[in-house]
Amino acid sequence: MKKINIKELAKLVNLSISTVSKAIRDSHEISEQTKNTVLEAAEKFGYAPNPYASSLRKKKSKTIAVILPEVADNFFSLAINGIHSVAELKNYHVLIYLSHEKVELEKNIIAHCCSGRVDGVLISISDETANADHFHKLQNENIPFVFFDREFENFNTTKVITNDFECGYLSAKHLLDRGCSHPVFLSISPSLPICNKRAEGFTAAITEAGIDTGKQDTIIYCTGSQEEIFDQIKKLLHKKNHADGMVASVERLAMQIYMACVESAIRIPEDLKVIAFSTLETAPILNPSLTTITQPAFDIGKTATELLFTMIEASNKTAVKNATVVLPSRLIERNSTLRID
Amino acid sequence: MKKINIKELAKLVNLSISTVSKAIRDSHEISEQTKNTVLEAAEKFGYAPNPYASSLRKKKSKTIAVILPEVADNFFSLAINGIHSVAELKNYHVLIYLSHEKVELEKNIIAHCCSGRVDGVLISISDETANADHFHKLQNENIPFVFFDREFENFNTTKVITNDFECGYLSAKHLLDRGCSHPVFLSISPSLPICNKRAEGFTAAITEAGIDTGKQDTIIYCTGSQEEIFDQIKKLLHKKNHADGMVASVERLAMQIYMACVESAIRIPEDLKVIAFSTLETAPILNPSLTTITQPAFDIGKTATELLFTMIEASNKTAVKNATVVLPSRLIERNSTLRID
Repeated sequence: MKKINIKELAKLVNLSISTVSKAIRDSHEISEQTKNTVLEAAEKFGYAPNPYASSLRKKKSKTIAVILPEVADNFFSLAINGIHSVAELKNYHVLIYLSHEKVELEKNIIAHCCSGRVDGVLISISDETANADHFHKLQNENIPFVFFDREFENFNTTKVITNDFECGYLSAKHLLDRGCSHPVFLSISPSLPICNKRAEGFTAAITEAGIDTGKQDTIIYCTGSQEEIFDQIKKLLHKKNHADGMVASVERLAMQIYMACVESAIRIPEDLKVIAFSTLETAPILNPSLTTITQPAFDIGKTATELLFTMIEASNKTAVKNATVVLPSRLIERNSTLRID
Repeated sequence: MKKINIKELAKLVNLSISTVSKAIRDSHEISEQTKNTVLEAAEKFGYAPNPYASSLRKKKSKTIAVILPEVADNFFSLAINGIHSVAELKNYHVLIYLSHEKVELEKNIIAHCCSGRVDGVLISISDETANADHFHKLQNENIPFVFFDREFENFNTTKVITNDFECGYLSAKHLLDRGCSHPVFLSISPSLPICNKRAEGFTAAITEAGIDTGKQDTIIYCTGSQEEIFDQIKKLLHKKNHADGMVASVERLAMQIYMACVESAIRIPEDLKVIAFSTLETAPILNPSLTTITQPAFDIGKTATELLFTMIEASNKTAVKNATVVLPSRLIERNSTLRID
């Protein structure tokens, strides 16, 4: 059978070339009905995308982008090492972009990635990100992407995350077990899914234990500059009957809790027990050593990158599109939550 | 006067267009004599590069690259923030590339940067980098670049560094003042200029104090994997009459010294005093708090980027070509070097 080109196909189904092209690339802009019409006609009349042009379009840059909020957090440093471990084998370049927790910057970066510069994108979203328009843009350009650690919830794409709800639950249980009667959870954002899941798990354990306290007392949002957050934590510690246990939802909050305790002459673990979501290398040599929920950061980066390459290399990119991989974190008990009897 | 184009100019001086183009771009591939011939003829016959094409060539990407060995070191995280603070004002994208201390990767990255992808490059070299061929390549492509922190010595370009010799000297003096009689300096590379300068300063202070010890005893090279370095440090600590003071030339060595001391039941500062070149945020809350030589990491990144933009924006890129800016570090004394009387 003689093969037809995209122009001829468009004419046959009475649609624009651009619509047909989008339908074939499985763009979300095109309705399922139109996609079916186009794909049926393509099969019937023998249309196949030019494999050379298609390969050029798909694989020309040998570069992937990593978009993440910051590198000062040890989690991201380790995840980057995991990402590099895969990209190096594939002989790919890795471009790291930082959003500095700003959604506007994140949008700009994604626009920058849409110009054929990269073959795929790994994203951990900023704490400001509240809508998915820019992720739709990536999908629309048919650039494979994977969320790692910080996903945008209810968005259909591949994601590699950890068991945040369960770990939030564990963190509260651990504090209660070690003798706390009024533990609180410190979050950095009311919109960031990972923080919310951790907070929900925390709340579930508190409720289960029959501790009756309004939500505003147990989940505390620490936002603003580092200095503002530091002042906020000091204020919490100066309150009468302040919390006797704190969960730091991200690494940098743990540092600030420790520093605030030094300044306020509050003893860890005697006056306050502390547990942090953190992969901090110095956790065992802090004063006192810090109990952590340690994420498999390297493996999260590595797995996300392996999945991204499966998508980049697949002829049919929809194959692995909506996988969700959950790699469990684990609680490492140290002296900051030592039971004092 | 009628203007001539580059083809006509090449014919007039009897050289290839490519040679004339390189001469005008001040490439190091072209001899000074040829450059003079070309520039004189260009002036005489009224050749001027097309300003529009030239501006396109120079500024089309609105992107700068940062090449550095790792992000797990807090110095680089802070320097990146300094770099971003300038790039954001200029509305430029920042691409971060990691060499993972491998010179081959560093070379690949520079080749990747040479394709019009970026308008300028900031580099902190890997600990393996022993020749400057790839930096010549950048110069040759007329891409402005600036060394920050880890420079390649004796290479003519702009650099922003700190006072490494002086700080090495200070670190030894400090240990001697606090009662050490046999301090050693831990380096990560025999070829990395910043480590060597720090080691030279250290040796100068030791010699000045009249301490007689062969070089191999006071300067120790910790190379290999993290595990190998950890074992090497433990062996040092298990020696009879082991050192009573250690300078960590980079941040990660400080962590390893602390961990090795915990495992070997060696007390800091009683049995061993420790000082580290480090911007570690957790230095004040370590057990014991860590004395540091703290580099102005943010300002080094910021200043390097400001200089890079001066070069990118200058019509004559040679204007700021060979500036060396030295931003001083400072010693912050904490409990890891406490005098025990």
